[in-house]
Amino acid sequence: MSSSAPDPHPTSGEDRGLSRRRLVQGAAGGAAVGALAVGGSAWAMTDRGSTAGQSDQEADRDTVDLSQSHPFYGSGAQAGVFTPPQRHALFMTFTMVAGTTASDLQSLLARWSAAIAQLTQGKSIGAVEPTRAGAVAPDTGEAFNLDPASLTVTIGLGPSLFDDRFGLKDKRPALLTDLPDLPSDSLQPGLTGGDLSLQACADDPQVAYHAIRNLARMVRGTADTHWTVMGFGRASAGAGQYTPRNLMGFKDGTRNITEEADRTKFVTIADADQKWLEGGTYQVVRKIEMDIEIWDADPVSDQQHVFGRTKDEGAPLSGTKEFDTPDFHKAGAVNGLAIPATSHVALAAPENNGGVKILRRGYNYTDGINQYGQLDAGLLFIAYLNDPAHFITLQKKLGSSDRLNEYISHIGSGLFAVPPAPATGHYVGEALFA
Amino acid sequence: MSSSAPDPHPTSGEDRGLSRRRLVQGAAGGAAVGALAVGGSAWAMTDRGSTAGQSDQEADRDTVDLSQSHPFYGSGAQAGVFTPPQRHALFMTFTMVAGTTASDLQSLLARWSAAIAQLTQGKSIGAVEPTRAGAVAPDTGEAFNLDPASLTVTIGLGPSLFDDRFGLKDKRPALLTDLPDLPSDSLQPGLTGGDLSLQACADDPQVAYHAIRNLARMVRGTADTHWTVMGFGRASAGAGQYTPRNLMGFKDGTRNITEEADRTKFVTIADADQKWLEGGTYQVVRKIEMDIEIWDADPVSDQQHVFGRTKDEGAPLSGTKEFDTPDFHKAGAVNGLAIPATSHVALAAPENNGGVKILRRGYNYTDGINQYGQLDAGLLFIAYLNDPAHFITLQKKLGSSDRLNEYISHIGSGLFAVPPAPATGHYVGEALFA
Repeated sequence: MSSSAPDPHPTSGEDRGLSRRRLVQGAAGGAAVGALAVGGSAWAMTDRGSTAGQSDQEADRDTVDLSQSHPFYGSGAQAGVFTPPQRHALFMTFTMVAGTTASDLQSLLARWSAAIAQLTQGKSIGAVEPTRAGAVAPDTGEAFNLDPASLTVTIGLGPSLFDDRFGLKDKRPALLTDLPDLPSDSLQPGLTGGDLSLQACADDPQVAYHAIRNLARMVRGTADTHWTVMGFGRASAGAGQYTPRNLMGFKDGTRNITEEADRTKFVTIADADQKWLEGGTYQVVRKIEMDIEIWDADPVSDQQHVFGRTKDEGAPLSGTKEFDTPDFHKAGAVNGLAIPATSHVALAAPENNGGVKILRRGYNYTDGINQYGQLDAGLLFIAYLNDPAHFITLQKKLGSSDRLNEYISHIGSGLFAVPPAPATGHYVGEALFA
Repeated sequence: MSSSAPDPHPTSGEDRGLSRRRLVQGAAGGAAVGALAVGGSAWAMTDRGSTAGQSDQEADRDTVDLSQSHPFYGSGAQAGVFTPPQRHALFMTFTMVAGTTASDLQSLLARWSAAIAQLTQGKSIGAVEPTRAGAVAPDTGEAFNLDPASLTVTIGLGPSLFDDRFGLKDKRPALLTDLPDLPSDSLQPGLTGGDLSLQACADDPQVAYHAIRNLARMVRGTADTHWTVMGFGRASAGAGQYTPRNLMGFKDGTRNITEEADRTKFVTIADADQKWLEGGTYQVVRKIEMDIEIWDADPVSDQQHVFGRTKDEGAPLSGTKEFDTPDFHKAGAVNGLAIPATSHVALAAPENNGGVKILRRGYNYTDGINQYGQLDAGLLFIAYLNDPAHFITLQKKLGSSDRLNEYISHIGSGLFAVPPAPATGHYVGEALFA
């Protein structure tokens, strides 16, 4: 660039409440400086007056507004549980370093919480450029001046945390135990469990990566990274949003939990045996590898029988529109049924599982090319539920009968307790140490 | 979801010219159906009247408009060379299967071109849901109904393609040879070379992944996948856009080529020894691993000496603003200079390299966690230039003296010739077979 090139951002970020440019110290300060909280969709409406013929919903999905932010502090579930799924996710687990104490864990949770409160408001977690020469910067800087991008970071606590190490043995909820072996498991060593989990979701992958990277960095020496998955493309979504597709090309999330009543009934933990988890939830995470090249060789008519839905519209094979309620008794061509009994939708449906629903939050992932030269890809499946048994029951059934099993392998797995959001100035899991 | 839930998209996409919903057969048809071509920024302006105090540029970067598209056909360089960098990239190389012929290669290039022309306009490359029962779908479907998201797919031809296999020995441009060993090389087997390259860039990673996946799929049996990198976050950008940051937290792309005169002088091939490459360019690709955890332990004052710029503003250490022209003679604290002679900016500057410039198109990547438990991340460096010697000269210098070498390793590498864009109905590289 020549010397006459103008500076396009002569005062970039200097006066922006949401900027990462200036460090705002402390969590309370974070809440005071222009948090632009949104309760609804992460998708912004924009003026598309010239595009006649498009519905509002279509205009809606054409634009991503990166300026939105979600508050970290509050009551009820942590952000990232009920938050409308952002476009990118970075999930990472951690193991506490040998010899660390309850006090180290307490400090870790407090520091993570204060940092997440800053990050979700589009701020750095400390100066990018310290004034003292020779100082190491608290923040690595790559999200400097970027928008909040609807970032949420959700902290989970694994069953292994409640052993002898941190004096938490008596604080373990009865339901927080390692997931049992499940019929579909092809778990890889190194992709299971973890003392702690972080789920960072944002509409900008650089913002999500920056969050996880800096949270990992600030606890070096206390907690080691364990396993991670980076996801994209939102394979599930709530009501009023279009339904994203997984890498099998099918809509994923059509029947996801969207109603407040279902959240209360199936996601939020009430009357917990451990008070620190009251108002929280459980997080089930599965890294599900898909043999997409084999899948792609399957005729669409068969793919539709595997899912129990049409590929284009996503309608149940008993109906014509995506949101038609499946009729699992309707007569049809597969053993007398329109929706095959071994299809994914039939096996997973609340109607066929005593009404049980789980809140899914899925993202697609790719690991490039595998050792056989085939595309290595799949689904980062994250579910929130108030009883891990709901997942276990469903997965036992799916793992035994689901025709999808021919094309997928569950290679990673973890279960975590997700305490409720902390009140301003407090931290996630604080009640554990009361 | 209850049976009374409304269908939010009763006629979604049916009438949209840019929809992937309906197959538009053939390349010429693709050009006829409402291509919404944009020549400028991939970032849309939106009404942000309520956010007083923000500059236009800042509003500009808050919103990503996914409805934009770039034409594939044209004159001059292929789309993806001079196109303003989109937010995501998927780069993949391919090797022609043993025993394939010139006719196979010709067919591959023709089919890829026709498919890319469809994909960049937001269309499927064939029916997602074929009408004939038992048929395998031409398109895998996961980008069905998604916006074009500014997708570009750029085809490159490696030196190895010009051997005895395809009768192209006499068509090899003299400058198209394997890159020599370079002082910084730590190349990994399996991450170098390739007969063909595809660079897919889009503002939606699902759109970029879908493109590469389907292009790989349609040539199975003719070309095998070789190596791939998925990038995010735009580590370089042109004028009028903010300058993105690499994972070292520094702005990357401040002095990138933006002027038409520089494009003509340094990027576009004129008077080519091989006429089929006239108006094309060369593509250098490097996968550069960054030891970001070691980097993060370095004081910012030292990091600034390594880059020769400030971290926050991105100003050369001889100035105060990002776009100030570096003064490499200005007196200062490091061996008498403000900008250290071994800093990255000093070593790479046109002023210190006979005026040479290269067009960079960089993306950040992450491969998760490495075998040592450290974050595995870096830069997907893609450069376009009309003489590979320009890169070789620069990299010989950088690989020998650059203080960055303490923190980075070049682990992947490739050089490809990028023929010009085809005229409507023609295909990339067609002139090779004339």
